Amino acid sequence: MRYARFRDPSGAVRTGAYDGETVEFGGRTYDLHSDDVDLLPPCEPSKIVCIGRNYVAHAEERDEDVPDRPLLFLKPPNAVAAPNATTSLPAGKTVEHEAELAVVIGEQARNVTAAEAPAYVAGYTCLDDVSNRDDQSRETNWVRGKAFDGSAPLGPCLAEPDDVPADASVRLRLNGETVQSGSRDQFVFTVPELIAEITDYLTLEPGDVISTGTPAGVGPLSDGDHVAVEVEGVGVLEHTVEQ
Amino acid sequence: MRYARFRDPSGAVRTGAYDGETVEFGGRTYDLHSDDVDLLPPCEPSKIVCIGRNYVAHAEERDEDVPDRPLLFLKPPNAVAAPNATTSLPAGKTVEHEAELAVVIGEQARNVTAAEAPAYVAGYTCLDDVSNRDDQSRETNWVRGKAFDGSAPLGPCLAEPDDVPADASVRLRLNGETVQSGSRDQFVFTVPELIAEITDYLTLEPGDVISTGTPAGVGPLSDGDHVAVEVEGVGVLEHTVEQ
Repeated sequence: MRYARFRDPSGAVRTGAYDGETVEFGGRTYDLHSDDVDLLPPCEPSKIVCIGRNYVAHAEERDEDVPDRPLLFLKPPNAVAAPNATTSLPAGKTVEHEAELAVVIGEQARNVTAAEAPAYVAGYTCLDDVSNRDDQSRETNWVRGKAFDGSAPLGPCLAEPDDVPADASVRLRLNGETVQSGSRDQFVFTVPELIAEITDYLTLEPGDVISTGTPAGVGPLSDGDHVAVEVEGVGVLEHTVEQ
Repeated sequence: MRYARFRDPSGAVRTGAYDGETVEFGGRTYDLHSDDVDLLPPCEPSKIVCIGRNYVAHAEERDEDVPDRPLLFLKPPNAVAAPNATTSLPAGKTVEHEAELAVVIGEQARNVTAAEAPAYVAGYTCLDDVSNRDDQSRETNWVRGKAFDGSAPLGPCLAEPDDVPADASVRLRLNGETVQSGSRDQFVFTVPELIAEITDYLTLEPGDVISTGTPAGVGPLSDGDHVAVEVEGVGVLEHTVEQ
């Protein structure tokens, strides 16, 4: 099953079954293309823990080593943007897209082992780890580079774990052209390994997100670009950018 | 005026006038030493934006350059610990204290200039930027090093801006001995400059915190240590650690 959070025509926030075209709540089916309905991020994370260089091919294209343990960085709540949002990029910066499979946490998690980790996963969604390379390359911690407003478009829905295959594809289309293509079985660190490593230090709360890194093919965004992140079993997160 | 958030004997969360010894709410004065009252952090930040090397003497003791623009890093909500908490340090790591003056944001802030910044400050409090040096020195972003649970004891109160002098002292006593001592007029970047720089990229929400860096004198913590961070005009944040 897939679930989407949305604002219904009355302005109320609802969660209902989602099939990519429609969402249901209270016996009514809303057409996402014609009804006055806005998709919202499927959760409201208190933090997003992101993983760097979790695909060998992306580490290579960035001229970086594959880390010997997960490279962690943070996006705070101001980073989150809704599906279909128009994201304002930092002015005058080189900003790139990064398609990612995102894990949504379902239960408070601390000191969880990899074996226990699946019980703490509510499901999966898509995230575009929008990255301001000019600042990222100049700063000790990637705050200007990775935590700016709107740097984490998130959605379109929460897909339950069984919906997302172990080798789920992770793709990004820029203005209709596929530029990133990878799959979950290429991860350097698996989702259970990531949960174990993170919860060795930090408590993850329900609704928190782990974004699992991006495959090769990252590239620059410019004013008016249309981005579609597709994770197999989840669906398509779309957003546009302005600069 | 100074205000503290606290849990009253019935378990309700209240905010009242604070004088270091007592807190008042609803016509009743609670003695913090004898009544069944627990101080809480004075705000609930969605993020803490921390500043590295904002005192020249601390940059020197860490053998680092003074940055040409603020060095930013993040602590998420799981990092926050209440006044008087016992903080569990990451096992087997070298963990150090860092006394800091913390700014509490009062109004949503985005693209705020330094001249406008004072209107966005609700007040000041104390923060101990508890730092796991073993991981900090090994990781690209300071997540294991700086964002672990309990790494941001925060309090004891919110002091209004007029209560905190421009040259307010920032001190830390470890088991009663003063080991850190600096003052706000030694900052490399002032509070308005920090707000302007951060809000050029990130929206700050009411209750968010900017922690302004630590003076020289950082040093290791061990099991059972008692820490007191004192900011002139705010008061004393106390916590103990276990490892």
